[in-house]
Amino acid sequence: MKSLSRIKVLALWVALIVVWSCKNEPKPQRFILKTKGSHPNLILTQEGVVKIKKHLGTIPIFDSSLEIVKKEVDNEIKNGIEVPVPKHYSGGYTHERHKKNYITMQKAGVLFQILNDDVYANYVKQMLFEYAKLYPTLPVHPKTRSYARGKLFWQCLNDSNWLVYTSQAYDCIYNFLSKNEREILEQELFKPFANFISIENPQFFNRVHNHSTWGSVAVGMMALVMDDDTLLNRALYGIKNLKIDPTLKDNDGGFINKHGKAGFFANLEDPFSPDGYYTEGPYYQRYASYPFLVFAQALQNKKPELEVFKFKDSVLIKSVNALLNLSNAKGEFFLLNDAQKGMSYHTSALVSAVDIAYHFGEQNPELLSIAKQQNRVSLNDAGLTVAMGIKAGKEQPFIKKSIELSDGSNGKQGAVGVLRSKDLELVFKYTAHGLSHGHFDKLSFALFDNGEEVVQDYGLARFVNIEQKGGGNYLKENTTFAKQTIAHNTVVQNKVSHFQGAYEIASKHHSNAYVFSADSDAIKVASAKEFNAYSNTKLHRTMALITLEEDTNPIVLDIFRVESSNKNQYDLPLYYLGQIMQTSFKYSKLDTPEVLGTNNGYQHLYKEAIATSNGENIKFNWLHSNRFYTYTALTSKNDNIIMARIGANDPDYNLRNDPCLIIRKKDTENALFLSVLESHGTYSPVSEIANNAYSNLKDIRVLCNNNDYTAVEFTLINNTQKLFIMSNSSSNLNRTHQLTIKSVKYQWEGAYTLINLNT
Amino acid sequence: MKSLSRIKVLALWVALIVVWSCKNEPKPQRFILKTKGSHPNLILTQEGVVKIKKHLGTIPIFDSSLEIVKKEVDNEIKNGIEVPVPKHYSGGYTHERHKKNYITMQKAGVLFQILNDDVYANYVKQMLFEYAKLYPTLPVHPKTRSYARGKLFWQCLNDSNWLVYTSQAYDCIYNFLSKNEREILEQELFKPFANFISIENPQFFNRVHNHSTWGSVAVGMMALVMDDDTLLNRALYGIKNLKIDPTLKDNDGGFINKHGKAGFFANLEDPFSPDGYYTEGPYYQRYASYPFLVFAQALQNKKPELEVFKFKDSVLIKSVNALLNLSNAKGEFFLLNDAQKGMSYHTSALVSAVDIAYHFGEQNPELLSIAKQQNRVSLNDAGLTVAMGIKAGKEQPFIKKSIELSDGSNGKQGAVGVLRSKDLELVFKYTAHGLSHGHFDKLSFALFDNGEEVVQDYGLARFVNIEQKGGGNYLKENTTFAKQTIAHNTVVQNKVSHFQGAYEIASKHHSNAYVFSADSDAIKVASAKEFNAYSNTKLHRTMALITLEEDTNPIVLDIFRVESSNKNQYDLPLYYLGQIMQTSFKYSKLDTPEVLGTNNGYQHLYKEAIATSNGENIKFNWLHSNRFYTYTALTSKNDNIIMARIGANDPDYNLRNDPCLIIRKKDTENALFLSVLESHGTYSPVSEIANNAYSNLKDIRVLCNNNDYTAVEFTLINNTQKLFIMSNSSSNLNRTHQLTIKSVKYQWEGAYTLINLNT
Repeated sequence: MKSLSRIKVLALWVALIVVWSCKNEPKPQRFILKTKGSHPNLILTQEGVVKIKKHLGTIPIFDSSLEIVKKEVDNEIKNGIEVPVPKHYSGGYTHERHKKNYITMQKAGVLFQILNDDVYANYVKQMLFEYAKLYPTLPVHPKTRSYARGKLFWQCLNDSNWLVYTSQAYDCIYNFLSKNEREILEQELFKPFANFISIENPQFFNRVHNHSTWGSVAVGMMALVMDDDTLLNRALYGIKNLKIDPTLKDNDGGFINKHGKAGFFANLEDPFSPDGYYTEGPYYQRYASYPFLVFAQALQNKKPELEVFKFKDSVLIKSVNALLNLSNAKGEFFLLNDAQKGMSYHTSALVSAVDIAYHFGEQNPELLSIAKQQNRVSLNDAGLTVAMGIKAGKEQPFIKKSIELSDGSNGKQGAVGVLRSKDLELVFKYTAHGLSHGHFDKLSFALFDNGEEVVQDYGLARFVNIEQKGGGNYLKENTTFAKQTIAHNTVVQNKVSHFQGAYEIASKHHSNAYVFSADSDAIKVASAKEFNAYSNTKLHRTMALITLEEDTNPIVLDIFRVESSNKNQYDLPLYYLGQIMQTSFKYSKLDTPEVLGTNNGYQHLYKEAIATSNGENIKFNWLHSNRFYTYTALTSKNDNIIMARIGANDPDYNLRNDPCLIIRKKDTENALFLSVLESHGTYSPVSEIANNAYSNLKDIRVLCNNNDYTAVEFTLINNTQKLFIMSNSSSNLNRTHQLTIKSVKYQWEGAYTLINLNT
Repeated sequence: MKSLSRIKVLALWVALIVVWSCKNEPKPQRFILKTKGSHPNLILTQEGVVKIKKHLGTIPIFDSSLEIVKKEVDNEIKNGIEVPVPKHYSGGYTHERHKKNYITMQKAGVLFQILNDDVYANYVKQMLFEYAKLYPTLPVHPKTRSYARGKLFWQCLNDSNWLVYTSQAYDCIYNFLSKNEREILEQELFKPFANFISIENPQFFNRVHNHSTWGSVAVGMMALVMDDDTLLNRALYGIKNLKIDPTLKDNDGGFINKHGKAGFFANLEDPFSPDGYYTEGPYYQRYASYPFLVFAQALQNKKPELEVFKFKDSVLIKSVNALLNLSNAKGEFFLLNDAQKGMSYHTSALVSAVDIAYHFGEQNPELLSIAKQQNRVSLNDAGLTVAMGIKAGKEQPFIKKSIELSDGSNGKQGAVGVLRSKDLELVFKYTAHGLSHGHFDKLSFALFDNGEEVVQDYGLARFVNIEQKGGGNYLKENTTFAKQTIAHNTVVQNKVSHFQGAYEIASKHHSNAYVFSADSDAIKVASAKEFNAYSNTKLHRTMALITLEEDTNPIVLDIFRVESSNKNQYDLPLYYLGQIMQTSFKYSKLDTPEVLGTNNGYQHLYKEAIATSNGENIKFNWLHSNRFYTYTALTSKNDNIIMARIGANDPDYNLRNDPCLIIRKKDTENALFLSVLESHGTYSPVSEIANNAYSNLKDIRVLCNNNDYTAVEFTLINNTQKLFIMSNSSSNLNRTHQLTIKSVKYQWEGAYTLINLNT
């Protein structure tokens, strides 16, 4: 069945390519060629090289970066050139070899320029000629999984990676080569290569997606080196007059090209919000940031008249700031949509991004502290500027603040809200779907404490570039579990994922930001609504970080309102990480786990234990990474509490066996999931002392909950009492509200208020 | 039933106390009192104080250590004195409060001496008088779990902790108090306290155990301060003429006093081997090291004629060296017997131990590098010496080497072997049982890679001092799982633990060291035999680290021979940590896990998947902490391969849900478990590059296996072939052997040889 659907997809491409024909390509726009001097002039510039040479040996971080690169390249040169016939998926030998080749060529090109040593130029030259010999002989890659198979690699995406790096190497040795040599490389290798990933694979090239970003940039970079306007036009504006069936999908399940947009500028315009948030999420933004920024750098060097860094109110520079803010205290990116854990701003793409944003932006001194943590710089003009900035002591701490980043090219398709206070970082997702890498988890959240994930987003079900796990590609459990709603910390209705787990539906909708207010240290609030995940059901979640004492972490208040016209079952999972210490409720562990459901991700969860609420608050206390946490939740009598674990129907051990706690409310139209999560204590295995191992919360209760207001009272062990009131119908920060609860009249201005009941 | 057995135990104590009577206490030995000057003269000395004051402000690590202590004590003084009526188990409020009190008193005493500020002396004085008021009113502690309930704490052990610290505080403010005040404290508090934990609890005091070490030292320290020879004699030599029923056990299941030995010197003589290995294992050695060393320090100061540091060929100094060598690259102690993960030489007990070993030993400069890592020193003469050594730049790296540490007071009760090579540290256990904290796991091993545990020892089932988990004490799963053989990486016969899981039997036996040879970088071998774990069955395991290439980790060769006169079933578990990447064999995952057995620890394992061997090598490849591992094992046709997970019959989530792989051989007298474990590759989630993700081993086979020799041939992917031959009957390193295999005659000298078959 799998191969059948693959054949169907292939047949569609053939049909599509037939529809489109070469002669439809428009006449290239003529650019005024402002080649500032001769090569290199793409990323490294001649002026830059002169300046770098002048400062060699005087700027520690630049010198050490150079030293590392030199060692790496020298080692590769020693190992000898190898350009194997392509054979493997990611992680496999030929894949990794070609990848290593392009990375090394790019670096060797730079070394040739900086160190003036022909060894490096010859290395690049020889390798390029090996490729020029091999490439014309290659059919498409033997591995068939991709909707757009490459030649060197199993997908055009990786072929594009190759060209992005190789174009830089070519630029660096351009003048080292004879005209005749250049002619051979361009005719035998570069132009056919660029054509293959563009006009021969329009389903890959002509779309708005991180794939086509790489494709456009690959073609565009090489176009700039070769001064080829036809290719440059194609790169910037897409293949013109191409008709792609708007219902076609790629193998991640995403639409190929629903709106007919294509080319670098469309890829820049569309997925970035005015705040610089990239709709696929930070993991893919990181991936796309290298081509976006490196090509922008090249355009700025060669086509300054395009003012690419000013495009869309400087969205590229903003995007770097947005991305850095979407990382935890350790610099690891938050997991929104498909994302692998551990990816951080220490990755090389972010070294380039930070250097470019500093050099071409407003030289924000906070970026220097990130560069210093990265402990290396790019070996080019931008990297030199950063290195000199660090040497001059200009750096300032990059302080990540609470921030709401809008989604959608117009900034009106929801947002992601990040609340930060003390050690806690809460990520609250109320975005659009995020293209083909989107997960079905509206109004979900994740929590980090001191850089450690405490309430987790599962991330993707994939081991990127680890060949033995499904060729290093997406595993089937990514679709059947990781993308499903139940894999996330948000409400599931009737065991069906948001938007029925259908990309076609999900991609039409987005959540709506409601309130984001993070100026006060005492209370920070993010609130959002989702009306389309389920028809006839409205979801409204408000999350707040409330500081109760000066030197302790704030509590996380979570008010999740569900309103429906039908009676439903609602599940709210909490993917806590760590070991259960204590619960206030009695649970029965099953003798052997049972599978929790049959589809929508439930088939991957084991039910381990079960409890039925007596209607009181439940408390769930656990230990993770030597910190104590307690989740206190309001429950109704007969709510089910399910202690579950990931891992069922996982024949290949593709999933992690992580636990979760599910509160289930049955047979009700409306539901209120109300909870407080505390990070209250620490444990030291060295001193064996447990500090504040217990919750400080005595009680949480709801005093009022209707379309207008939700009022929540909570009482601490020390008898401090607070009242939090949220307006559910007006987010206006200036409006005055009045509400009487238990004969007491409360009056306040703005969408919410926090009242101290003890005074 | 539990309370019934408790009543029985109590009745026995009553009987025992009646047997013994006060008048049997011998006349105290008269010591020549060499009080070097006046108080303080116990741990801090008057000369030391003068010296410390002279150097204040000039030795950074001493000053910063002082600063930390001062801050801590000042904060406690600000909070005020609280001496609550005892009520809780470990982790609970009154327990932690009294613990904090004695720690703070000790520190305040030191601050008074060093800073000459009466605030600190008054704090200690006031607190001591609070205790003097409370103590006489106290019955035994209300919590009943201990075989020796304390008064301030639930067990005499913690009461003894209190006295060890408090005696130091008392010494520091001795001269600050009037004679009358001292008289009150000694009569109302210290003497009754010392009597309670000794003569009133002989089952606690008069034994050889870490408990009685604390008890002896508590009494001894206070005796030294008070110059009380009766108490000192009792501390050093035990309560004389006391008859304890040799079959009595404590609540850990250990014998109280089987051999009639008692007192500090017996506790020093008996559990330490001549190499300084402490029979309970490093976790408890760490715990006992503070009283051992601090009392030795006091004795050296006040009774230098006893030459305590020279006792048993300087075993105390050796023990510090042994303990440091029993830690991984992160400084965390290896898990032998009951041990909590994460305990390391950064704990305060080891700060004292290292300082004392340096000061009173031969000023080994390697200890300074440990002290530097600890980043603090004790605030006394020993700490000052270390601080001055660091300041003078005398430190040298502490290089942990492969080492075999004998067990048993005579060094003839087996050993623990540690093989180290590159990033790998292999711990191989062939010791005696290790008293009441011993686990039933002869010939088990654990593996660390770059400080990360890869093949784990489960450790204890306890959350030390976390009250909500069984009062912070041992959980029942410690007995039912953690101590059982199947919880360890060693062979289990017929699903029954070694020695039938019976302490009475296990404590009579020990494994025998066979070969330990670690001088060569190319190959390091440890081999041991166990003939008593099962009657009629002999176990012989040989583990070797073999370096195949200069810049890669060695492989771990594991030859586990089983010989029996009966047909049995043998299980060998491998408690790998991490995520399964790939297996060479096809396994079937069960729809839902099944419980693996009914007792001996098997009841806590879930069977998740099962495979049956076709008789070929099986390969099991996994990823942990961004490193790739492969376990290649010889199997016989129809061997079962069980993929299991801890967690069954665990109603309170007391266990960690860690995985293991079990190879099961059925219905056979003899068995050979032969495997190679490789740490061969790395993964970076930042660069997303997998390096050497696959095993380098093509094949492993046995060419000969009998009572005389085992010969193993292994072939690498690059066709390198090696032959390892082990003599099973002679460990003589000088003996010449000859063996003909496949018509080739091999000749070598010593117990084993490694032959390169390619040359």
